Amino acid sequence: MMNVPLNVPAMMERAAELYSKKEVVSRTLTGVQRLNYEEIAGRTKKLAGQLQALGVRQGDRVGTIAWNHHRHLESYFAIPGAGGVLHTINLRLSPEHLRYVINHAEDKLLLIDEDLLPLIEPIQDQLSTVEGYIVMSDTKEYSTTLSPVYDYETLIENGDAHFSLLTDVSEEAPAGICYTSATTGNPKGVVYSHRAIALHSYALGLADTAALSERDRCMPVVPMFHANAWGLPFAATWFGTTQVLPGPQFTPDLLAELIEQENVTLTAGVPTIWMGLLQAWEKGNYDTSSLRAVLCGGSAAPAAMIEAFEVKYNVPFLHAYGMTETSPLASVATLKSYQYDLPKEEQLEIRATQGLPAPGVEMKVVNADGDVAWGSGEMGELLIRGPWIADEYDQDERSAEAFQDGWLYTGDVATRDEEGNIRLVDRTKDLVKSGGEWISSVDLENAIMAHDGVLEAAVIAVPHPDWQERPVACVVKKEGFEALRDQDILDSIRPQFAKWWLPDDVVFLDELPKTSVGKFLKRSLREQFSEHLMKA
Amino acid sequence: MMNVPLNVPAMMERAAELYSKKEVVSRTLTGVQRLNYEEIAGRTKKLAGQLQALGVRQGDRVGTIAWNHHRHLESYFAIPGAGGVLHTINLRLSPEHLRYVINHAEDKLLLIDEDLLPLIEPIQDQLSTVEGYIVMSDTKEYSTTLSPVYDYETLIENGDAHFSLLTDVSEEAPAGICYTSATTGNPKGVVYSHRAIALHSYALGLADTAALSERDRCMPVVPMFHANAWGLPFAATWFGTTQVLPGPQFTPDLLAELIEQENVTLTAGVPTIWMGLLQAWEKGNYDTSSLRAVLCGGSAAPAAMIEAFEVKYNVPFLHAYGMTETSPLASVATLKSYQYDLPKEEQLEIRATQGLPAPGVEMKVVNADGDVAWGSGEMGELLIRGPWIADEYDQDERSAEAFQDGWLYTGDVATRDEEGNIRLVDRTKDLVKSGGEWISSVDLENAIMAHDGVLEAAVIAVPHPDWQERPVACVVKKEGFEALRDQDILDSIRPQFAKWWLPDDVVFLDELPKTSVGKFLKRSLREQFSEHLMKA
Repeated sequence: MMNVPLNVPAMMERAAELYSKKEVVSRTLTGVQRLNYEEIAGRTKKLAGQLQALGVRQGDRVGTIAWNHHRHLESYFAIPGAGGVLHTINLRLSPEHLRYVINHAEDKLLLIDEDLLPLIEPIQDQLSTVEGYIVMSDTKEYSTTLSPVYDYETLIENGDAHFSLLTDVSEEAPAGICYTSATTGNPKGVVYSHRAIALHSYALGLADTAALSERDRCMPVVPMFHANAWGLPFAATWFGTTQVLPGPQFTPDLLAELIEQENVTLTAGVPTIWMGLLQAWEKGNYDTSSLRAVLCGGSAAPAAMIEAFEVKYNVPFLHAYGMTETSPLASVATLKSYQYDLPKEEQLEIRATQGLPAPGVEMKVVNADGDVAWGSGEMGELLIRGPWIADEYDQDERSAEAFQDGWLYTGDVATRDEEGNIRLVDRTKDLVKSGGEWISSVDLENAIMAHDGVLEAAVIAVPHPDWQERPVACVVKKEGFEALRDQDILDSIRPQFAKWWLPDDVVFLDELPKTSVGKFLKRSLREQFSEHLMKA
Repeated sequence: MMNVPLNVPAMMERAAELYSKKEVVSRTLTGVQRLNYEEIAGRTKKLAGQLQALGVRQGDRVGTIAWNHHRHLESYFAIPGAGGVLHTINLRLSPEHLRYVINHAEDKLLLIDEDLLPLIEPIQDQLSTVEGYIVMSDTKEYSTTLSPVYDYETLIENGDAHFSLLTDVSEEAPAGICYTSATTGNPKGVVYSHRAIALHSYALGLADTAALSERDRCMPVVPMFHANAWGLPFAATWFGTTQVLPGPQFTPDLLAELIEQENVTLTAGVPTIWMGLLQAWEKGNYDTSSLRAVLCGGSAAPAAMIEAFEVKYNVPFLHAYGMTETSPLASVATLKSYQYDLPKEEQLEIRATQGLPAPGVEMKVVNADGDVAWGSGEMGELLIRGPWIADEYDQDERSAEAFQDGWLYTGDVATRDEEGNIRLVDRTKDLVKSGGEWISSVDLENAIMAHDGVLEAAVIAVPHPDWQERPVACVVKKEGFEALRDQDILDSIRPQFAKWWLPDDVVFLDELPKTSVGKFLKRSLREQFSEHLMKA
């Protein structure tokens, strides 16, 4: 068989050749732009040529600090197409972490949105490897203290339309790097090879997973700086899919409008985004009929949310699981065909799990006794293996902990049902260890969030004098439910749990602290309530 | 990223783990067998262990001479799972070619169906590398002169259920070999790597190609000895798809019955099979409603056939293109989403082309002037490149002709339409070169086959004293159309072609000679009619 390397720039070449008329719809600061793949590919080539002219050589990291828009998409292909490594930087990192990841990755250039300049200007002097900044703007009407600075559109205007994207690199060569959003310590870098990105793209197109296709109009709400927007920009480009990129500072209403106006068929994001969208749909009068699937990952979606999408809005909900270390798609919760006749409630239960590993991915759940038995309810740590799963953190001694014996130790605690579906019950560090038994904070949260009056809930382990730890629920009420009391919450979940699982207390908060990618920041809650049960 | 090799045995492991209850429906000489993937995988492991016990070592070729059934499927995974190379032997080869491919491949063992023993017994003494024969039978009630001989089921009964399939070989290692059905000279061997088979399997599962999925009930009519039944047994196993294997000596009515009884959703085969199925459907009262797609390849399907499936039976027809050298899926004819509103006739025209290359495959059409322009009607030879495309024939000096500059020269003549779709117009050797211009024999055949009274038609180039070559049509009439005359045929196609394209003669035959895989054997017709136009 031919030794043709799988590679990222070839995906853009395919879109330009076969789907030149298909569009990328890009919301930027000045409005909605529409460019077809012929234009996008032409601009990508020019940008790649300019990156080489600015000194980018094979293996050099080039950072992006940007929202989801067409220029960011062009960078996805121009940077590897110039031989560089795409470093998508999480713009919600603290200044210290921003400095850390840029210096740790040794970024040679930074591409940055004009409205995000204030993130980098104050730390410019602390960036030891950056040789230049490229500002992405519709208007060129910005000023910045960054130096030397290049204007993205000017570079493209002066670019070489005949530059050839590099498509003959080894498929094992790095094409991208993302840092995890660490809740403790510095972020950890995961390097993606061309091979991993291409295989992961195939996985996204499979009929049994997300079935991403040319006929989709795909809107990744998940940021392009977060696990490469789950790889969707790569796969969508490869398949000639219409892309709808929602741009900076979007609101739930803006997403609802884009879905309606652009006939979005597939959208992807974390549960907190979908909570907001559901609220927008409840208040507004939006057309949701174009959606064939809402892809949800990042953290577990409560069954109640799935039901809201499907029953109330007739929008199929697709629950997936993965992490930065897994490119990220690792598993998808779909019914096996012989389950199509199960009662809706049982179907929902299955589809609220993390599902089955995608073809190419292997998973096992292990505890001190070995692999947990399917259907036993035994908990263990989830381990993952496969050709698009990381085997180390980039230059990071914390690798030794997460990668052992050829497996990724996810830090997620899971069970497996009778059919092999993975069900996450917690993070290893969030499990409540009560009197030698384990209590799943996630199970409690999901049950609490099914209450009509609850907007968000996080259950945390709080030190307890007698039981080592006991669960405490932190709850945000929905508008109109100001009268909700702790006993209402406990009563609503009591039938589902053993008595000793019930939280020792329910505290009501105005909002829950979140990580930069929208996950509940339980560490912060644990610190805040560390003495809560000691007073007794 | 982890260095996890893509490999064939892991596909069976996945089916056994995640889809143990899903079924393989296998028609054999004694009836229809049903085994689930747990059973299939268990038997596969036992067989693999026995193959090793019989001396199969890394890289050894093991031949199969068998119909589409569960034992053949088990061999697909047991042979590579034992470290061997699966050599699926075309049972329709002549005795000389059978002897050639077995000796050329250096098969160490042969697995053979009991009803096919007479193919090998007469040539046993001429097989220089075969050390043993394994007979596949439901009953063990066969006798054979082959020696030493082992019974498949006895081997399995005594096999080791705990044998581990080899899943840690290099993904570049050979997993299979198929020989092309050469119309001249000896067959040529194409070696498939584990990697190529896995990538090709991903391609079959893409929403934009065949969308093969767990919920399918897939019946490959294309033989498992012909380009690995287009790779469907590998991909279907990987995805946990229900497989319906139609077994030995099936008739069109038997296929129609299997589709109805087993609720087949996807079936795959060459146009001649579908001609037969359409006739069976016309006569019988079969339920066709389970079919979501009929995958057709091997040779070009006439638009009239596509229309019959879709308009008359409401069965979507999926036209694909490939060859043994391309694993085989290279391209699929599907509409781009902005073509959904085209008039049905234009849609049909697009869907009767060979379509667009699958993600990962590159195609170009070149003639002496370089790449042909899209939409120009210019003809050129089709070249293909990609990670599941062969780069040589196994130990064969004819490789130099077909593989040049990193491309496969297919020997197919094609045009590209405005949207890039490949449209085959001929084999380079079947083109009619008339007075310095090219005439497509395939275009003429398709037009002639659209005539109600025509069962089959082949157009051949016949030497002509003035024009070098001129087209002659060889036609088989349908029952009830005995009165059809040559002028009827010519009149029916006259409006579609320039005058100089029209065949110089139409000859009616009782049947057309065909290759072992059901393609028209034009070489034989050309020989028969070589003097036909010289008499004038």
